[in-house]
Amino acid sequence: MTARRVVIDTDPGIDDAIAIFLALGAAELDVVGLTTVYGNCAVDVATRNALVLLEVAERGEVPVAMGAAAPVATEYRGAIPHIHGVDGLGDSGLLTEPAGRPVDLTAAEFLCRHAPGATVLALGPLTNLALALRLRPDLDTLVRQVVVMGGNALVPGNATPAAEANMVNDPEAADVVFGARWPVTMVGLDVTQRVVMDGPRIDAVTGGDAPTTRLLRGAISFYRRFLERVSGVDGIYLHDPTAAAYLLDPGLFRTERWPVRVETQGFSRGKTWPNLGGTDDEAPAAWQGRPLLDVCVDVDAAGVVDLVSRRLG
Amino acid sequence: MTARRVVIDTDPGIDDAIAIFLALGAAELDVVGLTTVYGNCAVDVATRNALVLLEVAERGEVPVAMGAAAPVATEYRGAIPHIHGVDGLGDSGLLTEPAGRPVDLTAAEFLCRHAPGATVLALGPLTNLALALRLRPDLDTLVRQVVVMGGNALVPGNATPAAEANMVNDPEAADVVFGARWPVTMVGLDVTQRVVMDGPRIDAVTGGDAPTTRLLRGAISFYRRFLERVSGVDGIYLHDPTAAAYLLDPGLFRTERWPVRVETQGFSRGKTWPNLGGTDDEAPAAWQGRPLLDVCVDVDAAGVVDLVSRRLG
Repeated sequence: MTARRVVIDTDPGIDDAIAIFLALGAAELDVVGLTTVYGNCAVDVATRNALVLLEVAERGEVPVAMGAAAPVATEYRGAIPHIHGVDGLGDSGLLTEPAGRPVDLTAAEFLCRHAPGATVLALGPLTNLALALRLRPDLDTLVRQVVVMGGNALVPGNATPAAEANMVNDPEAADVVFGARWPVTMVGLDVTQRVVMDGPRIDAVTGGDAPTTRLLRGAISFYRRFLERVSGVDGIYLHDPTAAAYLLDPGLFRTERWPVRVETQGFSRGKTWPNLGGTDDEAPAAWQGRPLLDVCVDVDAAGVVDLVSRRLG
Repeated sequence: MTARRVVIDTDPGIDDAIAIFLALGAAELDVVGLTTVYGNCAVDVATRNALVLLEVAERGEVPVAMGAAAPVATEYRGAIPHIHGVDGLGDSGLLTEPAGRPVDLTAAEFLCRHAPGATVLALGPLTNLALALRLRPDLDTLVRQVVVMGGNALVPGNATPAAEANMVNDPEAADVVFGARWPVTMVGLDVTQRVVMDGPRIDAVTGGDAPTTRLLRGAISFYRRFLERVSGVDGIYLHDPTAAAYLLDPGLFRTERWPVRVETQGFSRGKTWPNLGGTDDEAPAAWQGRPLLDVCVDVDAAGVVDLVSRRLG
């Protein structure tokens, strides 16, 4: 079996790091590059982290392309150091300066060259993908699949009452990406908020002494403390790893085929709106003629936690 | 026990008619007036229907005050004759011109005079209530309770992918009403879409020969045919009667205390957004300091259908 080529667009980010290690370790996937974007942290921090993660995983040969520093049409809302740390990876003190450097291509340009024939696993705001579509308007006919961690179809938001964090960072870009011709799977809060790795499992998975494990241990303990403080629960959401798990075992998910618009207005900004009734003449005008996405609406949460644990352990 | 004074603000409307008959027949309630509003039909049609419903129920002494013909800040979206009929009550041919006339007060003025000390059961767009608050700014300290059929907290919309019909008709008014000091209960799609009266039950409830029953039979059969055409299901949603049932037996409902904003922008217009995290300094600015509503999130649907059937039968 030939490994499936994947470009990971990412703002690492603690759960991004888990997802990246998961993908790098998967024989089914051939990670051909990481493209970076602002989001959990600023893009220069995200780029440094992408390089560090690859080097810690002894995969320094995988190219990193630095991407957008801000959304396509607005200002960057800013990093969320209370969730991901000032360094984006939990302020564990384990990060060293990377030996490598990003390639001399923007993320959007990298996607134009290397995403054709590949799958894009998008773990941050969708700015780079929207920009790439504007650079190369036929790109959406060439990419095999876009798997997006982001959005909320039938559940409340997390960054705002209405919206999920990646979507609220760049709803204009997301609406472009969800309106293009490539096959898109939306792995949003409808499923990722159900995929919780509890404390004992975290301890088991991050107990080893491999460099990747030590880095994850430091990062995850920061995120775990944040969630315990705000929710009283001992465990972490596997947002981005759940999207990576979709690539490895889509049978763990149930999807619906819906057209999705992304709100850019008001305090609903960033809300992903499926029209459950489809796209035909009966649909509200804004949904007519829009492509159908595969929207994840249910998940075997224990199955995803097991998959992630097994592969990282 | 003294009967509880109620003003019903309404755009009858087939399910409004059921709710009105339910309230008129309830010994626990003293219906002191009907105020009318555009919505399911234009306000002149709604006013005619309110008078007819009272006369058919032999309650022609209850005053009707004609209210707003359009939302506070926008244009009326128009009637929905495919759901409620051109005459608003299912085009059964049973409507005759009423003998009575509306009182010489606008609905907003009527509410200012008669809602203090009373409960308002709001079954249409919230325009009249918002206008009444502007006419008499202390009204929200004088009204006992406002029970609103409308909105959708945790489920999709019905008039648009985002929003429920009463809210989308006047979200500016709804946001005023939900921001005022009176105790508000929101009986929205979260519960009303679960309260379905099926075909056999409809036949049983509307089988008699009383004038009110015959009028309901004609009206409901129109609504029933509409729903069967669009959904393939034989039954009707008891949207407005469910809100009336809340007054009669609140124990059939489970509520949460949340602040609610109503979106006025974009294609989310009319969406009611609870902030599940409350109203404190941690809340997004738009929800800070807002009053807590009682938002119905669960219902004993069979219990409501039984209550409605028993009382109408």
